[in-house]
Amino acid sequence: MSSQSLNSGLVLERLARTRELMSRNAIQALLVPSADPHLSEYLPAYWQGRQWLSGFFGSVGTLIVTPTFAGLWTDSRYWEQATKELAGSTIELVKLQPGQPGPLEWLAEQASEGSVVAVDGAVLALASARILETKLKDRGALLRTDLDLLNELWEDRPALPVKPIYEHLPPQATVGREDKLAQLRKTLVEREADAHFIATLDDIAWLFNLRGSDVSFNPVFVSFALIEAEQATIFVDGRKVSTALQQLLEAQGVLLREYSEVGAALAALHPSTRLLIDPARVTCGLLSHLHSDVRLVEGLNPTTLAKSRKSLDDAQHIRRAMEQDGAALCEFFTWLESALGRERITELTIDERLTAARAKRPGFVSLSFNTIAAFNANGAMPHYHATEQEHAVIEGDGLLLIDSGGQYLGGTTDITRMVPVGLPTDEQKRDCTRVLKGVIALSRAQFPKGILSPLLDSIARAPIWADSVDYGHGTGHGVGYFLNVHEGPQVIAYQAAPAPQTAMQVGMITSIEPGTYRPGRWGVRIENLVLNREADTSEFGAFLRFETLTLCPIDTRCLEPSQLSIEELKWLDAYHAQVRERLSPLLEGIALQWLQARTEPLTISA
Amino acid sequence: MSSQSLNSGLVLERLARTRELMSRNAIQALLVPSADPHLSEYLPAYWQGRQWLSGFFGSVGTLIVTPTFAGLWTDSRYWEQATKELAGSTIELVKLQPGQPGPLEWLAEQASEGSVVAVDGAVLALASARILETKLKDRGALLRTDLDLLNELWEDRPALPVKPIYEHLPPQATVGREDKLAQLRKTLVEREADAHFIATLDDIAWLFNLRGSDVSFNPVFVSFALIEAEQATIFVDGRKVSTALQQLLEAQGVLLREYSEVGAALAALHPSTRLLIDPARVTCGLLSHLHSDVRLVEGLNPTTLAKSRKSLDDAQHIRRAMEQDGAALCEFFTWLESALGRERITELTIDERLTAARAKRPGFVSLSFNTIAAFNANGAMPHYHATEQEHAVIEGDGLLLIDSGGQYLGGTTDITRMVPVGLPTDEQKRDCTRVLKGVIALSRAQFPKGILSPLLDSIARAPIWADSVDYGHGTGHGVGYFLNVHEGPQVIAYQAAPAPQTAMQVGMITSIEPGTYRPGRWGVRIENLVLNREADTSEFGAFLRFETLTLCPIDTRCLEPSQLSIEELKWLDAYHAQVRERLSPLLEGIALQWLQARTEPLTISA
Repeated sequence: MSSQSLNSGLVLERLARTRELMSRNAIQALLVPSADPHLSEYLPAYWQGRQWLSGFFGSVGTLIVTPTFAGLWTDSRYWEQATKELAGSTIELVKLQPGQPGPLEWLAEQASEGSVVAVDGAVLALASARILETKLKDRGALLRTDLDLLNELWEDRPALPVKPIYEHLPPQATVGREDKLAQLRKTLVEREADAHFIATLDDIAWLFNLRGSDVSFNPVFVSFALIEAEQATIFVDGRKVSTALQQLLEAQGVLLREYSEVGAALAALHPSTRLLIDPARVTCGLLSHLHSDVRLVEGLNPTTLAKSRKSLDDAQHIRRAMEQDGAALCEFFTWLESALGRERITELTIDERLTAARAKRPGFVSLSFNTIAAFNANGAMPHYHATEQEHAVIEGDGLLLIDSGGQYLGGTTDITRMVPVGLPTDEQKRDCTRVLKGVIALSRAQFPKGILSPLLDSIARAPIWADSVDYGHGTGHGVGYFLNVHEGPQVIAYQAAPAPQTAMQVGMITSIEPGTYRPGRWGVRIENLVLNREADTSEFGAFLRFETLTLCPIDTRCLEPSQLSIEELKWLDAYHAQVRERLSPLLEGIALQWLQARTEPLTISA
Repeated sequence: MSSQSLNSGLVLERLARTRELMSRNAIQALLVPSADPHLSEYLPAYWQGRQWLSGFFGSVGTLIVTPTFAGLWTDSRYWEQATKELAGSTIELVKLQPGQPGPLEWLAEQASEGSVVAVDGAVLALASARILETKLKDRGALLRTDLDLLNELWEDRPALPVKPIYEHLPPQATVGREDKLAQLRKTLVEREADAHFIATLDDIAWLFNLRGSDVSFNPVFVSFALIEAEQATIFVDGRKVSTALQQLLEAQGVLLREYSEVGAALAALHPSTRLLIDPARVTCGLLSHLHSDVRLVEGLNPTTLAKSRKSLDDAQHIRRAMEQDGAALCEFFTWLESALGRERITELTIDERLTAARAKRPGFVSLSFNTIAAFNANGAMPHYHATEQEHAVIEGDGLLLIDSGGQYLGGTTDITRMVPVGLPTDEQKRDCTRVLKGVIALSRAQFPKGILSPLLDSIARAPIWADSVDYGHGTGHGVGYFLNVHEGPQVIAYQAAPAPQTAMQVGMITSIEPGTYRPGRWGVRIENLVLNREADTSEFGAFLRFETLTLCPIDTRCLEPSQLSIEELKWLDAYHAQVRERLSPLLEGIALQWLQARTEPLTISA
């Protein structure tokens, strides 16, 4: 149960009031997505209405309320958590699975002739609105996006955040904002667009080399941006920006306007404007302000592809950040091993100590997501987070899964390692070994430049599928550069549509993190970040390979080395040799000894 | 150059007459697809207008003619052939590649405001027509599908075929037509459809357990079918059906009407009809006959999925057919090896001898496609076909690629093997070994039931990509049961969209055929057919594995065994042990000796 958990009585009461309000507005179904006007992964509290109404605190989920039904759709990462948190709420957990109808499909199937479905257009992507509208129309039902029913119910709705905005500066910011804007404007000309509207916070932060602290873990700030031929405007709460920064930006052609003025600014665009927007990344509510003659040019935000392609200079900073992050992990693991069995350690202690180890490192800004320290059965919940109310003590035998990451000025990290506690069982070791096989298979892969990233997923899964094992989440997500730990456009997940924009390009950073989850027993995940590098150009075209960026020992005490092939053992030994070489200069004393012990080769030749 | 090749003067004259006719009809662009009203792969001569007009004889290609341009779009399999055949024709070869605009996109980009694009609606899928119409509309251009311009130009247009239709009988036909019709009608009820119209020939042949010989290699007959609640109608030239068969069918509720009456029958459907059709498999021309109130229920033809899932009884017949096919190949290879260097052997001789070896086998009906016997540089053209005018003599050193297959009453075969001639080079052996690694990697794979088949492609390609090698065609296609050698819905090709209907199901038969093509030098392909079988059901769901159906030695003299892993060597030895065991009873004398020699294990332990 989460620390924020609601008692189910509160949820029942809120549902009852919601249904009453629906009835007064002649609404037959209300859809509440996990979304804000920026379609962010991490939502400011102001936009966490789905959590407020459902009592489910997972970061991804969609609630549907009808007069007689309430259901929450979420993916396999959250099924265990949702089952707990929804208990007694009358809200049904609907497991989101490939090939099964999602919430939009469900709504469309259920909608009867003449019924009205409401979604707050302020948080509904244009692309989703179109799909839903068409589906409902086919059933003779209507979509309303002009009502924010939640706002009427939610008396103690939190305020929007007002954390200060700061510059991401050289040397870590390797390209200036004026260069980035010039490049973007070139793309606008190519796309025959006069203007470009951006709602996604990481695109805005990247484009302007600005960072903020409005949401947890992602160093972004709540804002919109409008880029025109001669000027660029950021819509942001003026209290967040110092006068000096404002003057600097203005001198560079970047104007600031109040966040609340974005609708008016869109409404004021000349009717002849050709406006580039990403229909999946801008809400229909915002676009409803446009003059009806404004022509939309639709496509991925150009910044999304641009920021995914880290430069050679970025890569160098990231390698340094990975060394610092790896050294912090070594110091933490050194402490953990010495303390295990001698002092009381809980999942919370682990979060504290690991965070403290990272915080000492140069360039560290914050965590990049909530640390997952999950012992045995808790590890079976891929997005588990220990709380004051509910957490495990690390004792006895088993597996401890630690998934953590940091934001550094020179990069974003995300790493998962397995720690043996006492004596892991043979079955646990087999799970760890098999997952490592998946990591190695994909880490070693070479592949055509431009291959659609979802198609690579089966390379990681093949050795896992071979034992009739699978996992419900994707194998890899894109990672930002001192930005969101989850970013597009690439994604290594067979569940994802292999859209053209998922093509693998040089400089992209992606996680490789296969897993195995045995509910009620344990979970295994091993995760490294990898960088797309040019490999070779042959008569068959250009090929890419991965450089593993993450530097931290993979504990061989969780493995069954006899189940690894010679090639796999060689990969592991070469990885550990690299980890030892790169981290040794940053460590000393018992941490250095620990590093040496944990990077001993498994093969004689290595 | 093909035996049917046109001289370029003839093509120039036909293009000139086409442009004149376009001008008279105020048409700015004419699109001529490789298609017939059944959207078949193999077209009766009557529908080979694209070949007639362009002089390109490859089976897949789309011609576009404008007043100032003529272009032919085709995929990498045909680039070499098209380059040759289009020489001097003024028709430009446009290479169809993933991510590049196809002919429809090109038309849409080029179409100017007010221009008119013509395509014969009789051969244009509804789905394609919709896409093209929308694209053109966006440019202010118009699509006309009511003109068959070619017909006016093509004085000596061939007649439609009238080959007799016969029954596919038990024991090889394992499910009766009445059972299949009952099952289909159940699906119609589930889909809330009153009727179902089928234009695809293999669906019709499968549903009614009938076969024909109207097109090369595919044992189908030109027809349409309309399935209603109480009756089923086949629209077919009455001269093809014996009175006895007609009476039998009528007694089973299957009526016959003339092929030419299909439009009238569609027009006569009651306006309240809900008609199930596959928009990708029925032409807009045919559907234009429907009353405008008829409601289309759209989806894959239910027979497409049903026929892809071979029953256990089908599988047994296929295994027997594979044994006969393998024995024929062994006899052929025995002859080939003894004759090489002693008599003049050309690519044509190979086709003759191999066809003769197959023809002796019980249950053999015909080839399942044009034999590809391609020596050295010819092997670099994946769909090469030797002709009287142009073919290679098998002499000197190199690689001979033989891709062939048969139609048997109990199944359809498709196999590719590499034959060493003289002394293959190390580079050739490396290519063969690497391709075999791809075959083995996928053949050994286990995977979740229902996985979308295109996602499996990278398992076959990973060992090939590892050496910066790739191939432009798919890795695998579905194969029918005494039906088309290419059938859907599954396809193992990263170029294909992972649509829901591509999900892997028990009983599907697919080819695994990676390759390597070095233009002007040689080509390598190794191909087996595999059957989807239940593997295991664990807490992670149900898994499938492949049973390799094809039985024929893989010549180890083309391989570099030191480049195979222990696991790969074991797979190859186990495969050869199986081939030896299953084929020995069907062979004797020198062919049996050949089999024994070519199935010797490479590892000592095997």
